[in-house]
Amino acid sequence: MPTHLEYFTHGISEEERRTRTFLEIGRRAGHFPRAVARTDGSESEVSVWCSNDYLSMGQHPVVVEAVRDTVARFGAGSGGSRNIGGTNHRHVELERELADWHGMDAALLFTSGYTANDGALSVIAGRPEGTVVFSDERNHASIIDGLRRSGARKRIFRHNDVSHLAELLADTDPDAPKLIVLESVYSMSGDVAPLADIADLADQYGATTFLDEVHAIGMYGPQGAGIAAREGIADRFDVVMGTLAKALGTVGGYIAGPADLIDTVRTFSRAFVFTTSLPPAIAAGALAAVRHLRSSDAERDRLAENARLLQRLLDEADVPYLSADSHIVSALVGDDALCKQASNLLLDRHGIYVQAINAPSVRLGEELLRIAPSATHTPADVQKFAEALAGIWRDLEIRTASDRRDAAAKGAA
Amino acid sequence: MPTHLEYFTHGISEEERRTRTFLEIGRRAGHFPRAVARTDGSESEVSVWCSNDYLSMGQHPVVVEAVRDTVARFGAGSGGSRNIGGTNHRHVELERELADWHGMDAALLFTSGYTANDGALSVIAGRPEGTVVFSDERNHASIIDGLRRSGARKRIFRHNDVSHLAELLADTDPDAPKLIVLESVYSMSGDVAPLADIADLADQYGATTFLDEVHAIGMYGPQGAGIAAREGIADRFDVVMGTLAKALGTVGGYIAGPADLIDTVRTFSRAFVFTTSLPPAIAAGALAAVRHLRSSDAERDRLAENARLLQRLLDEADVPYLSADSHIVSALVGDDALCKQASNLLLDRHGIYVQAINAPSVRLGEELLRIAPSATHTPADVQKFAEALAGIWRDLEIRTASDRRDAAAKGAA
Ligand SMILES: Cc1ncc(COP(=O)(O)O)c(C=O)c1O
Ligand SMILES: Cc1ncc(COP(=O)(O)O)c(C=O)c1O
Repeated sequence: MPTHLEYFTHGISEEERRTRTFLEIGRRAGHFPRAVARTDGSESEVSVWCSNDYLSMGQHPVVVEAVRDTVARFGAGSGGSRNIGGTNHRHVELERELADWHGMDAALLFTSGYTANDGALSVIAGRPEGTVVFSDERNHASIIDGLRRSGARKRIFRHNDVSHLAELLADTDPDAPKLIVLESVYSMSGDVAPLADIADLADQYGATTFLDEVHAIGMYGPQGAGIAAREGIADRFDVVMGTLAKALGTVGGYIAGPADLIDTVRTFSRAFVFTTSLPPAIAAGALAAVRHLRSSDAERDRLAENARLLQRLLDEADVPYLSADSHIVSALVGDDALCKQASNLLLDRHGIYVQAINAPSVRLGEELLRIAPSATHTPADVQKFAEALAGIWRDLEIRTASDRRDAAAKGAA
Repeated sequence: MPTHLEYFTHGISEEERRTRTFLEIGRRAGHFPRAVARTDGSESEVSVWCSNDYLSMGQHPVVVEAVRDTVARFGAGSGGSRNIGGTNHRHVELERELADWHGMDAALLFTSGYTANDGALSVIAGRPEGTVVFSDERNHASIIDGLRRSGARKRIFRHNDVSHLAELLADTDPDAPKLIVLESVYSMSGDVAPLADIADLADQYGATTFLDEVHAIGMYGPQGAGIAAREGIADRFDVVMGTLAKALGTVGGYIAGPADLIDTVRTFSRAFVFTTSLPPAIAAGALAAVRHLRSSDAERDRLAENARLLQRLLDEADVPYLSADSHIVSALVGDDALCKQASNLLLDRHGIYVQAINAPSVRLGEELLRIAPSATHTPADVQKFAEALAGIWRDLEIRTASDRRDAAAKGAA
């Protein structure tokens, strides 16, 4: 048997290791979505079509200035965990603002959306003992990790399948405490969960609801408070979870919910307790972003228009994409090598950067180009992008939307 | 049985919840360790004696300027995960610098020290199957969490006890792949591990070594590369782990080690893959801090002098502390309520902020004031601090060092 270290040198195949080269991207503040890409030491100008800084708030003057001012005032880091010297007034203000935004009692910051899900669910799903969790099969890795860590019994319902969820709930001990965990906008497919129906089931079975709105906050609903807010049912979800790293343009994550529950997470969540808090400057930047997006619809409107235009153009070009529910337009390739090729061609031919998404981020056979237009793309950019993509679809002979429909019809016949 | 949510409202006692009020601290860049503390809306000037920004690099002009410039240039956030649009040249440069600092092939950034341990160990301890991990009983929560997540079999050795470790190694299947995980400076007790002896055992049993130098990098050894570097044995440890959030004054974490191992972690660590990367500005700030500390001894020397002076003064005042090995001077109170009282009195009477450390951060009966002088305290500050602490020890009748020695002698007799 090899030693532990020999295993890492010899025991893993290149394929298994899937060595990833990360494209170096220097986004240029004031010029998003434009960036400089570095490959093998040479630089070229690109347009980024896969950023999660959907509203380009990372370059917004109110955010940039808030970060710069706060660094000058309080320094670069917080200097400690929240409980040991690392709570700055900016953290407290941001937590209040987030709670208010979502109409909740309280909010709690984490260092990322990943640790917010992981750290919060490890506590919320883990108590009281005997809790049964109902989790959508497409939930994000951070949700899966938090639920695993909680040790709770887990029942997985088919993606967005309300009747399957109903079945599982009916089939579970009526006395067992229950928790339903879902996303509003799913990160890879861009489709939206049937929130009202799931809230109905939660009422019927007395289940707590935990809603990940990572890809929705800032972008949907009045004041950008998310999809549940857009549907007018934000109050039907017990805990909402979000990130500071996507529409808010910075980094960090949070949950908002009832005071008692938030307080329990604050006490017991190891991912919250045993780590240095976010830099005050980051909290200040995110606070500026939330405040701006609560009062301005301009960014959301531009994003929505770009998404609608792109979807229409891809329909016309017969390029298949997974869902028209949101601004995440995932073009389905369905093959690992082709997907990488398409991504490379977009970059080389057109100066367009869209990352190929392969396993394990999506399942085998569902490889895709996860396209995210941003609020700062122009209609002309969208037009150019759609043409470029259609050209590559033809040249690489990737299956079109009609191909897929025909094949599905045959399969069904 | 209550519903899941009712449990959070009624099922948890106040005591169990241990409601923590976090003191709000506004550290003033350019004036560290001075800060403004807010309690109940009123503000007062304090001197911070429990920050992990030990060298005050968070306020250093090279760090502050690097962060401010980079925010202006690249924006506030990275906009994506490392693999999807979130790799900036600053990340790559910092990884190279960290690897070089530690004399390793490669390094990998995480969003925090917590996620670096959790995310790296979940992979490193989890492969190959059958790996047995030997872990110091005082290892940090983030190490424990990563090891749990790996699913590896774990054998806990008594704190810094080389013969116990030897025993456990001898008692384990010689063919099983082995991993030893330890810290160099322990975070709560401030004592230093017997690194050379543990490296000897690792050689003897062919074990991989994973060394957490979170409280040592920047502060010990040539160029501040850590305790292993100070002992001249950095090359005897396979993986070194550190944070950007303490001596480097920002936020984030990393591991450095052999190329193949780092590459495997990069591919499989879910805490690395499924999250937004650090803001380029944070990476730039940390890079400036490392570069500065590699060429300047001034900050480390000041910190070491302050620690030595404080230890001497506490010896004279008969105040017990756990270890004189490092700059972490933990005064042992040994009682939850007394510990909080001592902390409150320091603040109210002397404008000195030291957080009381109670369970679960330390064991019951080991409650302490974790005192961390900083490089920017003056000798006069240290003097004043030691007098204040001695006064409180007398007034609250906290057990002195001699009390404890006498009791121990009696116990032994
Ligand atoms: C649904 C979902 N939840 C949580 C996260 C984690 O957020 P963050 O990038 O802030 O760690 C992501 C994306 O990374 C996500 O897609
Ligand atoms: C020994 C040790 N390792 C890791 C960490 C985590 O580091 P960070 O604060 O960067 O998350 C800490 C402190 O929080 C620590 O004391």
